[in-house]
Amino acid sequence: MNFGIVIRVVGFLLMVEAAFMFPSLLIAIYTDGEDKIPFLIAILISAGLGFILSRKENYKNQIGAKDGLAIVSLGWVMASIIGAIPLYLSDSTPTYIDAFFEIVSGLTTTGATVISDVESLPQGVIFWRSLTHWIGGMGILVFTVALLPALGIGGFQIYKAESPGPVAGKIAPRIKDTAKILYKTYTIITLCLVILLLIGKMSLFESLIYTFGTVGTGGYSNKNNSLAFYDSSYIHWVIGIFMVLSGINFSLYYSLYKKRFKEVFKDGELRLYLGMIFGATLAIAINLLLTSYSDFGVAIRDSFFQVSSLMTSTGFSTVDFDLWPNFSKGILLLVMFIGGSAGSTAGGTKVIRILVMLKLIKREITKIFHPRAVISLKDNDKVISDDTVINISSYFALYFLIFIISTLLVSLEGIDLISAGSSVLATLNNVGPGLGFVGPTRTFGEFHQITKLLFSVLMLLGRLELFTIIALFAPKHWRGEL
Amino acid sequence: MNFGIVIRVVGFLLMVEAAFMFPSLLIAIYTDGEDKIPFLIAILISAGLGFILSRKENYKNQIGAKDGLAIVSLGWVMASIIGAIPLYLSDSTPTYIDAFFEIVSGLTTTGATVISDVESLPQGVIFWRSLTHWIGGMGILVFTVALLPALGIGGFQIYKAESPGPVAGKIAPRIKDTAKILYKTYTIITLCLVILLLIGKMSLFESLIYTFGTVGTGGYSNKNNSLAFYDSSYIHWVIGIFMVLSGINFSLYYSLYKKRFKEVFKDGELRLYLGMIFGATLAIAINLLLTSYSDFGVAIRDSFFQVSSLMTSTGFSTVDFDLWPNFSKGILLLVMFIGGSAGSTAGGTKVIRILVMLKLIKREITKIFHPRAVISLKDNDKVISDDTVINISSYFALYFLIFIISTLLVSLEGIDLISAGSSVLATLNNVGPGLGFVGPTRTFGEFHQITKLLFSVLMLLGRLELFTIIALFAPKHWRGEL
Repeated sequence: MNFGIVIRVVGFLLMVEAAFMFPSLLIAIYTDGEDKIPFLIAILISAGLGFILSRKENYKNQIGAKDGLAIVSLGWVMASIIGAIPLYLSDSTPTYIDAFFEIVSGLTTTGATVISDVESLPQGVIFWRSLTHWIGGMGILVFTVALLPALGIGGFQIYKAESPGPVAGKIAPRIKDTAKILYKTYTIITLCLVILLLIGKMSLFESLIYTFGTVGTGGYSNKNNSLAFYDSSYIHWVIGIFMVLSGINFSLYYSLYKKRFKEVFKDGELRLYLGMIFGATLAIAINLLLTSYSDFGVAIRDSFFQVSSLMTSTGFSTVDFDLWPNFSKGILLLVMFIGGSAGSTAGGTKVIRILVMLKLIKREITKIFHPRAVISLKDNDKVISDDTVINISSYFALYFLIFIISTLLVSLEGIDLISAGSSVLATLNNVGPGLGFVGPTRTFGEFHQITKLLFSVLMLLGRLELFTIIALFAPKHWRGEL
Repeated sequence: MNFGIVIRVVGFLLMVEAAFMFPSLLIAIYTDGEDKIPFLIAILISAGLGFILSRKENYKNQIGAKDGLAIVSLGWVMASIIGAIPLYLSDSTPTYIDAFFEIVSGLTTTGATVISDVESLPQGVIFWRSLTHWIGGMGILVFTVALLPALGIGGFQIYKAESPGPVAGKIAPRIKDTAKILYKTYTIITLCLVILLLIGKMSLFESLIYTFGTVGTGGYSNKNNSLAFYDSSYIHWVIGIFMVLSGINFSLYYSLYKKRFKEVFKDGELRLYLGMIFGATLAIAINLLLTSYSDFGVAIRDSFFQVSSLMTSTGFSTVDFDLWPNFSKGILLLVMFIGGSAGSTAGGTKVIRILVMLKLIKREITKIFHPRAVISLKDNDKVISDDTVINISSYFALYFLIFIISTLLVSLEGIDLISAGSSVLATLNNVGPGLGFVGPTRTFGEFHQITKLLFSVLMLLGRLELFTIIALFAPKHWRGEL
């Protein structure tokens, strides 16, 4: 392993984090909150430690697959440990583990919280936890890669390990340019939403909070009952639509910009993604109309918002969907499981993986009748290799293994299996709220400290797509000599 | 499609079924029950229709893959329709759909029942529903193949479509001999258990009932509270162990007989199967001791029995495990999902498939560090091809697709998601009881008729391993022109 470069890049990362904490310090000073000194301390530690680490000179510029994994894993853990400091020091959370959980949840854009009275938090802290969504959404290391001149070639290994989805697509030949294009697109979407929320009569501060939560698909709010606080169809629709937009592969926006419309229109993942949102919204709306709702428009609005929120793994809520009928709750669990598109800020197992598995089912049925035929899977006119299919299969296998073991462990807390399973789904897929004990009106605060650490690990596993971290801790003989 | 041979084989099958109904007729006459005439009518219909169909002369002796699928699918549906007649005519069930559900559940060795007061049934009917477990366990068509002289070569397509597991292993070069060896082994195990139960002071009638339920891994009982009725540790242990034995690949018994001990000892599936039973038993026993149980021996006995019963998809119960702590219930759901070994009478997704997926996870982690290395998966020194891996992956993909859609449909009945999900798991994996609404002390009787039909289809899909039936109903362009 090339330890030199690992340390150096993590150092740069911490300096970037210090810079991102600066606005919160200003807000803390402006509001004269209890979080002034905590943010100052955190920034000094982050910048100081970052500066020392980044001075590491004894390194090779080569970044291998393993180094990329190490940089991303270590980087995310370090960023969470440091990012938790202001929360802990300002007494926003009772323990350091709670603060760590909260920032891991923020950076991984999960949005699960341990804080039951969010409204009592200092304003700087509120801003910081929401901003972590924005940073984590596109990837804090992708950002670093975009800034670092030294990481010309090796940056791809970092980008690959951090970006969501089975295949890391390069938009531009140089990874640095890809990172820049992604962040430009991201910034444009962010600005659009801020303006639309301002038009909806939100304050600038709140517009930023909800924009970070939406475009990063995180879900942190500054209100205890999330977006149910805002009794405005306009805001619900705007945020609902922007959640959907944030769950689309960002490279497709670049294709749009380059006027490659056919590429966008024929994209299998996009079509399935939109189709599933449409189908789930309709099914739930009908289910609601047959049970508790009487107005079709309201049913569609509420259904669309929760589907869009849970499918993109955001986790905002405008109603307590834990009170909905079981069929609707089942569909919500399903869209939570699927998640958004690869290359978006959304979590979940990703629509592209589902698409490949569906195509596979179809092919295997054909093969029963034509056992000797060689039929290749295709998406967007490109052949999907057997290796990709096997890789996706192993992803699901590992996913279910982690899901099952974690659910069993969480069930030791004594909660029912739907609560246990949905809490694991909510963290592993970076959604935020689940059902029952972790429903939209509840928090993760009541779990045991050890369970909170388990959830923190699950959020990181989910954000970095399992294999990144698991691989680093695999027994030596698995990764070493074959 | 070779319709001639399909009709002919199904004809033979119905004659075999008529023969199997004969003992029930004798019991009905002997006990002078209300099921005398019903059995007589059913036998006449079955034998008559079977005779007519089997006279079909205009056929080719060639059996293709598609013909095999058609024979098995049609054969199982016909056998269920005819087998339901005595239940309906003797008023054992209120509707014909209930009777159909009950016999599908019997033949597929599920053991889920719609009858709440089993003890009031006529003795002939009790015997018949239990005997269907025995016939369905090893495969009614495998039996027919063993008898039919004409099916020398083509029988393999039938055997392949009916036998459980991803790869249909031939024990002898000729499929007819394989079928005979399997049925001999099955008969020996059956006789052993009957004798052991007689020693345990069960009557001959009840010994047969519980033997059919055990070795066929079905689970029908003649008591309303299943094996909890028998307050005998001996019986619980004997049946518990024989359920485990029935969940082992039957070809391994033949290897034992041929003194190929190393082959048995090194068998990966067997080791994982036994290991999982051991681990699950221990985990649940400890969980029980920490909550409600005080005696270690009793905890182990009860834990082992339910694990063995649910893992082998039998479904007998000696306690109401729906009252156990959530962690234990979670483990029970997990073993229900996994099921027994390929080539046994047990249901579920099969241990071999889980084994391959676990090996795959390990390999893909190694591949992260050695992206260009070609590492082949191995089991028992044999290489597992990529095609097999992809086939198993597609099995799981289809499995989850069916599982999710069915659970959503069942949840429309208004029951909670654990009840809905476990009822689908209980039928699709041919287990029998589930949790909550379909817990071990409940029945499937309260579901809507349409839901019962859905469950019947799921039981058939599970027994015939999904693709067999799905393939037949696939859109024409999937299976036809490539």
